[in-house]
Amino acid sequence: MRNLTLLTDLYELTMLQGYHRNRNDEVVVFDMFFRANPFQSSYSIMAGLKQVMDYIENLHFSDADVDYLRSLKLFDEDFLHYLKDFRFTGDIYAAEEGRLIFPHEPILKVIAPIAQAQLIETAVLNIINHQCLIATKASRVAYVAGDDRLMEFGLRRAQGPDAGIYGARAAVIGGFHATSNVLAGQMFDIPVAGTHAHSWIMSFPSEYDAFKAYANLYPNACILLVDTYNTLKSGLPNAIRVFAEMRDAGIKPETYGIRLDSGDLAYLSKEARKMLDAAGFSDAIISASNDLDENLILTLKAQGARVNAWGVGTNLITAKDNPSFGGVYKLSAIRAADGSYKPKIKLSDNPAKITNPGNKKVYRIIDKDTGKLRADYICLEHEQIHEGMELVLFDPTNTWKRTILSPNTYTLKKLLQPIFIDGERVYDAPSIPDIRARCKRELDLLWSESRRFLNPQLPYVDLSQELYDLRNTLYFEYFNRRKPTP
Amino acid sequence: MRNLTLLTDLYELTMLQGYHRNRNDEVVVFDMFFRANPFQSSYSIMAGLKQVMDYIENLHFSDADVDYLRSLKLFDEDFLHYLKDFRFTGDIYAAEEGRLIFPHEPILKVIAPIAQAQLIETAVLNIINHQCLIATKASRVAYVAGDDRLMEFGLRRAQGPDAGIYGARAAVIGGFHATSNVLAGQMFDIPVAGTHAHSWIMSFPSEYDAFKAYANLYPNACILLVDTYNTLKSGLPNAIRVFAEMRDAGIKPETYGIRLDSGDLAYLSKEARKMLDAAGFSDAIISASNDLDENLILTLKAQGARVNAWGVGTNLITAKDNPSFGGVYKLSAIRAADGSYKPKIKLSDNPAKITNPGNKKVYRIIDKDTGKLRADYICLEHEQIHEGMELVLFDPTNTWKRTILSPNTYTLKKLLQPIFIDGERVYDAPSIPDIRARCKRELDLLWSESRRFLNPQLPYVDLSQELYDLRNTLYFEYFNRRKPTP
Repeated sequence: MRNLTLLTDLYELTMLQGYHRNRNDEVVVFDMFFRANPFQSSYSIMAGLKQVMDYIENLHFSDADVDYLRSLKLFDEDFLHYLKDFRFTGDIYAAEEGRLIFPHEPILKVIAPIAQAQLIETAVLNIINHQCLIATKASRVAYVAGDDRLMEFGLRRAQGPDAGIYGARAAVIGGFHATSNVLAGQMFDIPVAGTHAHSWIMSFPSEYDAFKAYANLYPNACILLVDTYNTLKSGLPNAIRVFAEMRDAGIKPETYGIRLDSGDLAYLSKEARKMLDAAGFSDAIISASNDLDENLILTLKAQGARVNAWGVGTNLITAKDNPSFGGVYKLSAIRAADGSYKPKIKLSDNPAKITNPGNKKVYRIIDKDTGKLRADYICLEHEQIHEGMELVLFDPTNTWKRTILSPNTYTLKKLLQPIFIDGERVYDAPSIPDIRARCKRELDLLWSESRRFLNPQLPYVDLSQELYDLRNTLYFEYFNRRKPTP
Repeated sequence: MRNLTLLTDLYELTMLQGYHRNRNDEVVVFDMFFRANPFQSSYSIMAGLKQVMDYIENLHFSDADVDYLRSLKLFDEDFLHYLKDFRFTGDIYAAEEGRLIFPHEPILKVIAPIAQAQLIETAVLNIINHQCLIATKASRVAYVAGDDRLMEFGLRRAQGPDAGIYGARAAVIGGFHATSNVLAGQMFDIPVAGTHAHSWIMSFPSEYDAFKAYANLYPNACILLVDTYNTLKSGLPNAIRVFAEMRDAGIKPETYGIRLDSGDLAYLSKEARKMLDAAGFSDAIISASNDLDENLILTLKAQGARVNAWGVGTNLITAKDNPSFGGVYKLSAIRAADGSYKPKIKLSDNPAKITNPGNKKVYRIIDKDTGKLRADYICLEHEQIHEGMELVLFDPTNTWKRTILSPNTYTLKKLLQPIFIDGERVYDAPSIPDIRARCKRELDLLWSESRRFLNPQLPYVDLSQELYDLRNTLYFEYFNRRKPTP
């Protein structure tokens, strides 16, 4: 397994030496959360936890790592020696992969000695931010694609190998069926897809020869790329000729059809459907690719495009219209000697950037009648919440907006599950198909009003009264005591 | 070294089996090129070649790879057996890292048996596309930053570990001085930078205590983050107090100063400069970060911002405004039995997508008087070009635009250097500082009119008359012979 221990910002290490030097083994709480959904979505999808688990389990400074750090002339021998035995011994709680996640709620919580909690910040953010981004994007494409087949085709434009590999993983979590990326297929046991390129066609004397050779090779999965010369005048007639020859020879392929990779996909797919149907190939697949995303697929479908398999590349694998997910990692509490948690708050002149203090938990509240999401509810860890309670929900910004949930009209589920306790992994990562299925169930919790692309209804994320009061108290306390120094 | 052999699209492998089955060991030429610069730039920067070299040298199917491919039930035993001894035995020519590269010219050329040339397409594109993208973006930031120090801070928002690691590498090639990414520092021997986070400040009883502790730890490199509570009323007075105490104690730091990470960076940096100067700290660095890119730095400088070190994160590491580089890889010729190259062309209804056929080379033409770039010149490999010739340059689109270069008024340099010959590496990758220095020299070849951000003058990329004629001949030939089949 790759050693990613040095996959961290230098400042984590300079701070680490500081915490070590000051014999500061205080246990602290850090929350990972994000402030806004990408793509103007009303939700995001959790992904990447498995890779965080691998990273944490493998966290150690090799001799070469320590030698490298020594060469920077920033660290003393006492600290370098301490790094040799450095391990993660704390607790991590996180939203499982495939879960809906929303702005301002903790999606991953670390309780650990401050040096350990600090060091892992960068890698945790890197991994989770990337996969949440792509899984969320993929879920949007899957929403418009309905029952069509979705293939991730972006490897050649991905931002390096990992972006292709883990992007493919996240795409499948978000609802894709397959990837062209063979290494991702091997690593995560996800279906791989693909047929041939224009260069295959060009390397034969004629398009027909190229199709025929391909059909002979792959009689069971024969998707022919028809746009090398002229889609309707050459590609489709040649493809139909080959399909007819297969039929005459008694070959019944499991999967066969055509792929369009250029031109007006709405027009071409409709014409192709007519030609294929007229030739008796009404079960032939029409797949399409070429700079697709959820918006383009939506408009193609509105125009009656007859595509039933979509290859989505660059715009998915780079999340082109919003290529970063803004997860952050903030100190929220320090454990006192008596085991209680002293809340910490990060202030800002921008109210949206003020953090939720304290050691917190999150409940997902589902309405019993409809089975739909009612709200996520953030409270302090010590608060006792149960389904038999009357629960008051209020918007932390517009606090006069209050809803009262009657007892036993809702179910509660804890969002954050224990992943590591005392440094030991206590959670088994599910298979990708299981995560994908969970994601689908989670998306079904949303009202359709929250899934539309323009002005979606935002699901509620509410604070408990106690957390809300704590936040206000700390806020005013800091502002009142703040004065110029010296 | 990581085995990236399966980092490929499935269709490369399905085609490979086809080429193998048909005993097709034809030698072909593939060109990597791109059609448009990102960021509306007039140029791009070549990067990633070292990682392509590593990939090619390590190209082999492990037993586990072959077992995985067998499990897909697409490949026969004869082919799987053949993969076990599969190696790259061909030639690769490429523009060296740090070179200027322009649309439509080959930046990497592969001459190899078709199966080998085809297989490597996806990984070559993935690696080169990513690093060219980030190096080009970085060169734009470096252009506006002038003599200021530039630090790459994007790891936490990069699209996975590799995007952070190789993005940091490409950023330094493009002109950055350092990265926060420790693993990139270790792997590529590039400078690392960073100090502390808001969490460091928040974990101490007061901001002053946090600054003091940091200054005690790192008296030689003491950059204090001043915006946790209030930049001008708390952060700066506390920082100045600590700097004064260091001065009183006779400590002269090599590097010291402040970092601004929020608020109005123009206003705050000007005020900070006044306060630091007034306290006798006119050599204190003022560094800034917070969603910066080349356009924001340009406008901050226009407003008189007194920042002299910039930390650039998300917008650089994801190339946010243009997160993919559109490099493609196209068949351009097939070697005949007599060793000549039969040109191949990829047609399209979109003229910008028609490829340049044949086995080609590229000359960079420098004007002797000015030392500036005159044009890049693409011709066929067999054409004899030398500096004593009169050279006719003409625009391949607007062919009436012609320029005649008199003999010995220009110098020629071949853009594509041999990297692999007969499968053997014949090129030593330079160090990152050497590549970075080359990139700087290459950028100096451009007229300033080509470096401005709005409507830059596009450098010329011209075709030889022979190549131009060949392209037209093939174009008309294909269109005339194309007819519906059967």
